[in-house]
Amino acid sequence: MKTLKTVEPLTTRLLEIQRINSAASLLSWDQETYMPAGGGEARAEQISTLQGIAHQKLVSPEIEGLLAAWIAPQTGAIQDSPGDAWDAPSRALLREVWRDYSRAKKLPSDFVITLSRECSLAQQVWAEAKKASNFALFLPNLRTILSLKQQEAHYLGYKDSPYDALLDAYEPGSTVATLRLLFAQVKARLVPLLQKIQNSQTLVDDSALFRSYDTAQQMEFGRLVLVAMGYDFERGRLDLSSHPFTTSFHPTDVRVTTRVFEHDLQSCLFSCIHEGGHGLYEQGLDTRYFGMPIGESVSLGIHESQSRMWENCVGRSRPFWRFFYPLLQQTFPQQLGSLDGDQFYAAINRVKPSLIRVEADELTYNLHIMLRFEIEQDLIEGRTSPENLPRIWNQKMQDYLGIVPSNDGEGVLQDVHWSFGAFGYFPTYTLGNLYSVQFYEQAKLEMPQLEASIEAGQLLELRRWLEQKIHRWGRMFTPDHLAQRVTGKSLDPEPFLSYVEKKYSEIYKL
Amino acid sequence: MKTLKTVEPLTTRLLEIQRINSAASLLSWDQETYMPAGGGEARAEQISTLQGIAHQKLVSPEIEGLLAAWIAPQTGAIQDSPGDAWDAPSRALLREVWRDYSRAKKLPSDFVITLSRECSLAQQVWAEAKKASNFALFLPNLRTILSLKQQEAHYLGYKDSPYDALLDAYEPGSTVATLRLLFAQVKARLVPLLQKIQNSQTLVDDSALFRSYDTAQQMEFGRLVLVAMGYDFERGRLDLSSHPFTTSFHPTDVRVTTRVFEHDLQSCLFSCIHEGGHGLYEQGLDTRYFGMPIGESVSLGIHESQSRMWENCVGRSRPFWRFFYPLLQQTFPQQLGSLDGDQFYAAINRVKPSLIRVEADELTYNLHIMLRFEIEQDLIEGRTSPENLPRIWNQKMQDYLGIVPSNDGEGVLQDVHWSFGAFGYFPTYTLGNLYSVQFYEQAKLEMPQLEASIEAGQLLELRRWLEQKIHRWGRMFTPDHLAQRVTGKSLDPEPFLSYVEKKYSEIYKL
Repeated sequence: MKTLKTVEPLTTRLLEIQRINSAASLLSWDQETYMPAGGGEARAEQISTLQGIAHQKLVSPEIEGLLAAWIAPQTGAIQDSPGDAWDAPSRALLREVWRDYSRAKKLPSDFVITLSRECSLAQQVWAEAKKASNFALFLPNLRTILSLKQQEAHYLGYKDSPYDALLDAYEPGSTVATLRLLFAQVKARLVPLLQKIQNSQTLVDDSALFRSYDTAQQMEFGRLVLVAMGYDFERGRLDLSSHPFTTSFHPTDVRVTTRVFEHDLQSCLFSCIHEGGHGLYEQGLDTRYFGMPIGESVSLGIHESQSRMWENCVGRSRPFWRFFYPLLQQTFPQQLGSLDGDQFYAAINRVKPSLIRVEADELTYNLHIMLRFEIEQDLIEGRTSPENLPRIWNQKMQDYLGIVPSNDGEGVLQDVHWSFGAFGYFPTYTLGNLYSVQFYEQAKLEMPQLEASIEAGQLLELRRWLEQKIHRWGRMFTPDHLAQRVTGKSLDPEPFLSYVEKKYSEIYKL
Repeated sequence: MKTLKTVEPLTTRLLEIQRINSAASLLSWDQETYMPAGGGEARAEQISTLQGIAHQKLVSPEIEGLLAAWIAPQTGAIQDSPGDAWDAPSRALLREVWRDYSRAKKLPSDFVITLSRECSLAQQVWAEAKKASNFALFLPNLRTILSLKQQEAHYLGYKDSPYDALLDAYEPGSTVATLRLLFAQVKARLVPLLQKIQNSQTLVDDSALFRSYDTAQQMEFGRLVLVAMGYDFERGRLDLSSHPFTTSFHPTDVRVTTRVFEHDLQSCLFSCIHEGGHGLYEQGLDTRYFGMPIGESVSLGIHESQSRMWENCVGRSRPFWRFFYPLLQQTFPQQLGSLDGDQFYAAINRVKPSLIRVEADELTYNLHIMLRFEIEQDLIEGRTSPENLPRIWNQKMQDYLGIVPSNDGEGVLQDVHWSFGAFGYFPTYTLGNLYSVQFYEQAKLEMPQLEASIEAGQLLELRRWLEQKIHRWGRMFTPDHLAQRVTGKSLDPEPFLSYVEKKYSEIYKL
């Protein structure tokens, strides 16, 4: 039997590459949290240097030579010799290394370095442009990034759309064709539901959530919920950044960030829970496999399923707040003393078309994603130029959500993603929403007492289940295979659609 | 004329190496400031991976080939062709690159990686051991580090003492022989001075400095002084760490740390000023030369001259406090309201043999250094074993300072240096003390109004002078050459000795 031991000359090299990538991730984390403004240009060069080295090492003749001994270079087929087969972990490792290697091999190192540098710089310009609500400021960088991403798609190759080549990076196997079909199915049920809600006589008052809440106490409460979720602060941190995110340098050092606004109770709270969900995934990876694909998260869609499950299925559920709302009331007695649990539950689940994706309810959120998906596709396929984005954005906001931003800061500039070249990333958010409910329903099926435990403030049962079923497997299975193993079927929008229909029918008495 | 342009193929590679080193420095900074405890092992591997790569790149055949075209490989002699000489910057560059290259070339890459990993790990064990005052806990790591450093000295080669090989890394050109002579000269004047002070009828009361001082206000005052010094927060930060330090990733991102104790006004204050002095040096380097030796600080002794000048010549002077003491009193009216400026000046200059080096007065500080210098020499030359250190330490404390620590945490474990392998570093502190006064006397000579400016809170004149005379030159000149250019002579202990004799004679009415 051939095992991971057999491929040790390869995994030793992968480990070195992973350490370089971890260092680059720390540089990015620092850029978003503590770096002084003046350090931005040098930082961009440092990150791109490291990413260039990691890329060069991955496509090096040594790794090529090692892989060629085990894998057919063109097809990626793993060579089995009769009577001496590969075991499952080493098979998965070879499959995934070949995937990474053959993608990387198509990109020249110079291109990787340039892309990395331009993204790091563009991110800083974007932050300024967003603050100033000045799209023109960001436009030159966006043009550069877009053209680099088109170039990247060209290098990577594709059958139908260049956008497919980019989608595949974030969600292996996803394509424009499958996503369009899936999103159409989702939209067909969400839009009528949204209309019913908007026509409902039941009004939800969420004004209490926008009273004044001490920011330090908000942070403390966020931290409390993270601890309850099992997020390990011995192996993690919570910091502030303008966009909340999670990053990992190793399962023993996984960091989440949040933001906090005095007059918005939900922002810090749900960012903490959301990023905590990502953080648990990263802390739950198997340290023995660090540096190997099977020690890495499998896809962004699955990653997002973890954050959205905690944020929505758990964090916006009645059982969760039966336990945590009294604690929240104790923390903010003046602001919440007169609001009962049911009112609070309704308030945090209010459906209202809004401008900002990350603050959207569970239902309209997906419409924000579909809008971005269409724009990205048009940009990458060259049907739209970057300078038209503000106009197109506002038009689509009108079409999808019936509202139009008054400035680009809360419109087309709201998301960081395009500035760091993450075209193809947005669709994984909706995939995550769909997966999250599919997984959560399965968890409830397997643990009939789950919601009773959550009601008692015990969240570790769910965390353990996720760790056993999803986290610890890393990239052992493809996303689709993982979904089948966990739930018995491939991605299925039905659980999500039933969930939102049931949830909102109850809240809005439809 | 051959210029920096001629060596561009070399400087491009040096720049890449410098960026890798900058990344490693950020990883170290994070380790000391924000890293969660669990991340330590992975961090050690990340840092050593980067340092290994930087080392491999420096000793690569490409750099060797480039250098060989311009420099005699054995002697380092720069090859001039008649009528086409090197200009001064490129001469200096070749001289210093050859120095770095030929040192690095003597060390196997595996050794560099091992040393880096062991130091990073030992640093974390040392921190625990110090907290627990448990030398035995640190002893195995210390043994490992010591034997690696002996191995390093062996690789580097030396004439008289293996310790010379290590000294030269921090202070190019310094040797055991020259330092012993110099330190003996200093000691010959300091010891009688200390005796006179201890016999003086004048008693200095510094008890006011140990009242309760709000730590946030202490930090704010430290920040105020840093701003006054011209430390640029757009290109820097101030954070907390258990040992104050300064680190730089580029002149546009230079970070200082401090510590703060409620019952010790001096610790945060003078750490800020001291590290600010280091920070100004790093911020004052010429960004055009980033990645080249002439864009780097010249030696630790010169670096320390900057921190000590600000801390002592300025920060413990009457003119400085004529301006800043009223501000400090405003900040802490209850604690300092009844203490007048003269009393405060005397208090911060109280001479008293004490256990902790970093809290020592300007006079006894050097005795702390001499003690460490002797111990290091004995360790590296193999005359002493690490397990004897606590005993030897306490004996020497008795001999030099007449006091003995009650535990190893405030004794032999107090300094971080040995844990990261910095044998040979301590002597540069005394060199810094000597250089600081030599430079400061020169500054006063060239700017007769200097102390009047300082009295008016204007510190930028001094900063500009230092930048012009010292900072911007990087490693253009050797430390000795630099001292000659700035003051007309090589390192001379006389200015320092006269300075302390005059200062303390006045305070203690000798």
